Amino acid sequence: MNVAILLYDRMTALDAIGPYDVLRRLPGAEVSFVAQRPGPKRAEGGLSLVAERALSEMPSPEIVVVPGGSGQSALMDDETLHAWLRAAHETSIWTTSVCTGSLILAAAGLLEAKRATSYWLALEKLGELGADVLQERVVFDGKVVTAAGVSAGIDMALALAARIAGDQIAQAIQLAIEYDPRPPFAAGSPQKAPAEVVELLRARSRFADGR
Amino acid sequence: MNVAILLYDRMTALDAIGPYDVLRRLPGAEVSFVAQRPGPKRAEGGLSLVAERALSEMPSPEIVVVPGGSGQSALMDDETLHAWLRAAHETSIWTTSVCTGSLILAAAGLLEAKRATSYWLALEKLGELGADVLQERVVFDGKVVTAAGVSAGIDMALALAARIAGDQIAQAIQLAIEYDPRPPFAAGSPQKAPAEVVELLRARSRFADGR
Repeated sequence: MNVAILLYDRMTALDAIGPYDVLRRLPGAEVSFVAQRPGPKRAEGGLSLVAERALSEMPSPEIVVVPGGSGQSALMDDETLHAWLRAAHETSIWTTSVCTGSLILAAAGLLEAKRATSYWLALEKLGELGADVLQERVVFDGKVVTAAGVSAGIDMALALAARIAGDQIAQAIQLAIEYDPRPPFAAGSPQKAPAEVVELLRARSRFADGR
Repeated sequence: MNVAILLYDRMTALDAIGPYDVLRRLPGAEVSFVAQRPGPKRAEGGLSLVAERALSEMPSPEIVVVPGGSGQSALMDDETLHAWLRAAHETSIWTTSVCTGSLILAAAGLLEAKRATSYWLALEKLGELGADVLQERVVFDGKVVTAAGVSAGIDMALALAARIAGDQIAQAIQLAIEYDPRPPFAAGSPQKAPAEVVELLRARSRFADGR
């Protein structure tokens, strides 16, 4: 099972690493980090993650993972990337995204009338791009799987692991990453978080001005 | 607030990236990835993360984060690293670990009679190294904060964010990473997981033979 995780500048590292540290534990999985040009990509906050393969070296991954992050906006018109995504999607077993990665899938034309989700502040934008938007943690529509913001990539990858390798292996992976979460607050979704916290993020969102 | 996250070969990427994508969002935080020798470090599974600074360039971080992973065992006798950790701990505000990173802190002599935790399969080893072991998600003992396995670094970092910057900012960070977890199974701890899944991991644990 070949997994290609897209890297790009100003992505959110956790969007990629959550799924990575789950999917790489699948029996037989081989995970590659890909980018238009191989080399270090600078995630939000300054960390460099190394993409070892060019998109062109990996035309037919069985799983595609597209992370989000503020650099996503620079990829909305990237025809080379979109063409790679469309071609990869033709033969993929699963085409997936985390957070605003779904906006890139949508821009490539892959979410037209598909049920999909995204980071909570990007859901409106996702709808404008033609998806049938659901505000859920993980959304499956055929072979397209989209996750909500950042940390939702872990839940998505575990759900995917269960579909691919069965419940017991997915449970073993969950136990191997000791994923028994205890968030310190009920603040992880706009429905649960205090209204002033929701407004704080909404006010400084890069989607607030329709980008 | 200067944060130093240790990188090394065969670390678990998520151990470092969970805390990274939380702590870097703290107002005024500056996160650096450090290693004995700067350059790319190859995490478990093959991903390279780039350490941009040498330990010697960062003698007094305010927060130290030590991730775990199978490469931890190679650092148990690393006197240069231990000396850096002891010196950093003298002036740090918080000295922290995720997963088997606590074994490294213990080997450096920083957990003697301290309440601490680790990856569930490493708790016995942690006790042998002199810590007062608790099987909890996140353990605070003074300025020493240790987290359980891999994904527990997210919970630890959010708890730390609340202590450092207050509940509202921690809640805003939690909402920014949309951390409203929905694990697909009740399998994230040895108490909750099916017995055969626990045994599966125990049987292939590198701690099974006392390493």
